[in-house]
Parts: sequence; structure tokens; C-alpha cells
Amino acid sequence: MSDLKNRIMEEVRADLADIECALRENLNPHLDLVREAASHILFSGGKRLRPLLMVLSARLCGYAGDDDKAFSVVFEYLHAATLLHDDLVDGARLRRGRLVAHAVWDNPTAVLVGDFLLARSLSIGAETGRLKVIRVISEITETMSEGEIRQLMRKGDLGLSEAEYMEIIRSKTAVLIQGACQTGALIADAPPETEAALSDYGFNLGMAFQMADDLLDYTSESEVLGKEIGADLKEGKLTLPVIHSLEMAAPRERAEMERIINAREFSLSDFQRLVEILDICGGISYTEQMAARYVEKAKKALLTFPPSKTREILLDVADYALRRKT
Amino acid sequence: MSDLKNRIMEEVRADLADIECALRENLNPHLDLVREAASHILFSGGKRLRPLLMVLSARLCGYAGDDDKAFSVVFEYLHAATLLHDDLVDGARLRRGRLVAHAVWDNPTAVLVGDFLLARSLSIGAETGRLKVIRVISEITETMSEGEIRQLMRKGDLGLSEAEYMEIIRSKTAVLIQGACQTGALIADAPPETEAALSDYGFNLGMAFQMADDLLDYTSESEVLGKEIGADLKEGKLTLPVIHSLEMAAPRERAEMERIINAREFSLSDFQRLVEILDICGGISYTEQMAARYVEKAKKALLTFPPSKTREILLDVADYALRRKT
Repeated sequence: MSDLKNRIMEEVRADLADIECALRENLNPHLDLVREAASHILFSGGKRLRPLLMVLSARLCGYAGDDDKAFSVVFEYLHAATLLHDDLVDGARLRRGRLVAHAVWDNPTAVLVGDFLLARSLSIGAETGRLKVIRVISEITETMSEGEIRQLMRKGDLGLSEAEYMEIIRSKTAVLIQGACQTGALIADAPPETEAALSDYGFNLGMAFQMADDLLDYTSESEVLGKEIGADLKEGKLTLPVIHSLEMAAPRERAEMERIINAREFSLSDFQRLVEILDICGGISYTEQMAARYVEKAKKALLTFPPSKTREILLDVADYALRRKT
Repeated sequence: MSDLKNRIMEEVRADLADIECALRENLNPHLDLVREAASHILFSGGKRLRPLLMVLSARLCGYAGDDDKAFSVVFEYLHAATLLHDDLVDGARLRRGRLVAHAVWDNPTAVLVGDFLLARSLSIGAETGRLKVIRVISEITETMSEGEIRQLMRKGDLGLSEAEYMEIIRSKTAVLIQGACQTGALIADAPPETEAALSDYGFNLGMAFQMADDLLDYTSESEVLGKEIGADLKEGKLTLPVIHSLEMAAPRERAEMERIINAREFSLSDFQRLVEILDICGGISYTEQMAARYVEKAKKALLTFPPSKTREILLDVADYALRRKT
């Protein structure tokens, strides 16, 4: 574990423990199959980034109530619901080194338990009794679902532009992280400009986070990542390292890339050659730079807050988005 | 078309036209694939029972605003979202005589467009700005999702009891119809006892409606029904006609029923023999009687309202639940 991650973990240990409790408590009254299949995805080593960001955002706004942990699970449930359906849509086999839910159980279970988690998160949202929070959550859900559909429609399309990629990662990843931070401000009854600053932080962090995630598919070892080598490409997902490289490549390199990408079931040596080309064409470094730019914007949004331990942690989380290895 | 249906249709023609418009308008700003796949399920001859019940319930409570039609689509979208996911979960091929969405497109599309419709209905719910309405909608969604999971868990189980069947149809069908009626009362700012009466009407109507639907699987012609003969049984769904007959059957008949049911891919003559046994053992007539009892309860709940044209239509709808052929 890196020093940065150690430092963050040290500071948020108590919060994470409370979030774990809330995640389990909310599943308790439900059917065995729900609890088991939901637990499979929920308790498989996720980072709890989204609920944690809500809790920290509320604290940064001076929130001193007791409801933050209970409400924060909304953002982990929404995330888990999306993962359950995504893995099915993508035909994925592994997530975090474990078989995906639709392989452990079956497609019907993954569909229905995903639906349940989605419904549960909207119920918890309704329990806040705050219209603004409810609107944020329902808008997130709608936007994420559109993002997934957009991604599905463009699957395997080598013509996907950088702007379209940005729109996809905004809707499938950034709005959820943005919404978690914004909701933290809302439950703390923060003034609009404070809410906007945290929303801004969350959006930029979310964009950086997804870019870093997309990079890991080309720069990380399979065992560390817990999924197949080249999984994104095999699922027909073009991400920024590839999009930028296709744009910058000389005709011969572009042809080579196209051959490997279109094959889908490429060999390990083909994949290694592709990563080499991504390096040569600047796709890797360009994505790193873009992610770093979003991290800077995220951190800048926090500078409107006076220095505090909580602000430090949120700044560290932004840095961590770039440096994480899984 | 029966006289009863003709009479209802005559009275609600204008409402239905408004509901159709609202259903289309709400899909307009969205992606092509969403519009097409959602339209496939939404505009395939559904009866619009749920939005219509919301509109009529609001009118019965004296509602005179303009928002009822726009909000009523929530209940059709929720219904359509469930159908999209159910057909996939059940491995169904036909609905209302047409290929199901996951066969026209594919599983990923059915999953994601179902998610979108679910998300969209919760957004429309949030747009009402009424916390009580939002809570009703999110609770419905959660209960329905649990009902579907419960049904999945008991698939093919010949030990399913009448009480368990009642719980399944309550959660997968009755709560949605109940919620539509209750929401009509809520947007009309009706007093609690009026809200409770309409909720009561909706619940009992919903129970009767599902029992009648389950009967049709054994009493209707395939061409009229628009789906396969014996589809419920082939999907492993035990419904009241079968549950009651299994309970009442003599050992020899019970053994014959079990053989046919467990075969799943039974022949037409096997199925006809099964229907004969359901008749002999009283499963058909028992279900008819139970459905009729719920219809009576539904109608009784309306008698707290003074006579009016709207009350007449709602009483007719209750009668229609029993007599419909599709």
C-alpha cells in the first residue's frame, strides 16, 4: 500500500467502519437471495469511495448530525446495482478477482438483484425527506442509465471521438461521484456556492477517476487488477488511451491497431504490441495528463474551503485517483 | 369487444389519448435506442390500466389540475420496466403476440432500457415535488423487485402454498395498481380516509386482476392471449388454479399433474389433460371465486364515494377485471 493510501485509510478508518455497518444493516431485513447476491458484489473489497466522499463532504460543510452514514449507502448501492447489470451487459467473467454474480448465480438473479439495489437506494433517498436530495439521486440514476446505453450503442465503434468518450464517462461515472459530494453538502444545509464547489470537486474527481481506471486496463498486471488482460477492448470499449492513439497514429500503426482491436480475441503478444503502440502514439501519456488536469480542477474547487483535516483528506483522495494501482 | 369494455372505452377515450401523448412526449428527448426499445414494449397494445386508474382516482377526489396525465405515466413506465426485465428473466419469447424486446434487440438492451424506464419513472415522481408520492413510488419499486425475486426463488417449486402465491401477486402486481390509485388521491390532496379507500380499491383490484390473468393462461386460446400455450407452467410459475388443484387432487391425479408440470416441455395434449384436471379438482372455479371476492372488496371500497360518472367507470373497471379475455 502506498504512503498516500495509508494516510487516507488512517484518517477515515472509523468512517469506513460505520459505512460497512450501514451497508450490512440495510440488507438485513431482505430475502436470502438478495442478501447473498448483493453481498457478493458489495463486500468484495470495494473502496467505498462514494459513500466516503458523501460523509467527508458533509463534514467539510460542518455537518454534525447522525444521518450521514445511513444515507451514504445510497451511493454504494447505486454503484453496485450498475456493476451487476454492467457485468452482465459486458459479458464479463471476473471483477476484483472473483467470478461475477451472473456467473455465480445466473442472469435472472443479476438482473433482479440489481433492480432491487436500485430500488433500495431510491427508497433510502426518499427517507431523507429532502426533495433536493431525491432529485439529485433520481437524476443521477437516469443519467447513468443513459450513459450505459450510449456506451452499448457505440460498442466496438472505432470512430468514437474524444468528446463522446468524455460524455460517456461523465454520465456513467462522474455524475455519481459528483452527486455523492453534492448530497453531502445538501444534508449539511450548505449554502449554494458551497454545494456548487463540492459538486465541482466531485465531477472533476469522477472524470479523473474513470480515466485512471481506463488507463489501468493497459498499464496494470491482470492479477493486480482482478480482471482479464485487455478486458475493456475485448468488450468493445474504446477508452481514451486508444481513442487518442488512433487519432495520432501513422497509417501503418493505425492499421495494426485496428487489426488487433477488431480481432477481439487477441493474443497476449498482440495486446503487448498494442500497449507499445499506445505508448508510442502518446495515448498513455495524454490520458495521464488529462486525468491530472481534472485532478487539479478538483483540488482547486476545494481551495474555497478553509484549511482543515477533512479538506486535507479530500485533497489526498484526489491525488490518489491518479496514483492508484487497482 | 364486450359491451362492458365498449362502455369503459367510450368514457375514457379522451383520457387515454392524453395518456398516449404523455407517454410519447416523455421519451422524445432520449436516445434512439431507448425510444425504439421502450416504444416496442410501451406501444404494443397495452391497456394503460395503471395511468388511467391514477387519472380516474384523482378525478374521483375532485382533482381539477393539469398534472395528472403527465404524472400518470410513472405507472406505465414502471410496468413496462418490469415487463422488459421479467421477459428476460422468464426466457419468454412472445408478449401480446409480438417478439419480446430481448429477442428483437438483445439481453443488454432489455436490461439497460428497463433500467432507464425505472429511473425515468422515479425522476417523474421526483418532479411532482410531493414527498408522499415519491415515497409511494419508491416503496412500490422496492416491493415489486422483491416480489420478482421471491418468484424467481420459488420457480418450479410444487410446494408453493396459496399464502405464498398471494404474497407474490401482492408484491408483483397489486402494489403497483394500489399505488396508482393512491397517488391519484394524493395529487388531489384528498383526506387520509379517502386516500385509504382508493388504496383499498386499487389493492383488491390488483389482486383480482392478477388472478384473472393467471386464469387466462389455462382458459384462453393462444392467438387471443398473444403468448405460448401454458407459458406460465413452462416458465415454472405455479399459479392459483394449479396450487389449489394440487392441494385438492386425489393421489392419482396429483401424480399425473406432477408428471406434466415437471416435464416443462409438455405436449398440447398433456396441457389439455392438465386443464381438464384443473377443472375436475376445482382449481379453475376456486380461482374465479377468489378473484370475484377481491372484485367485490374493490367495489365496496368505492361505495364510500357519492355516486358519479367517475365512480361508475371505476366500478366497471373492477367488473372488467374478471371478464376480460386478454
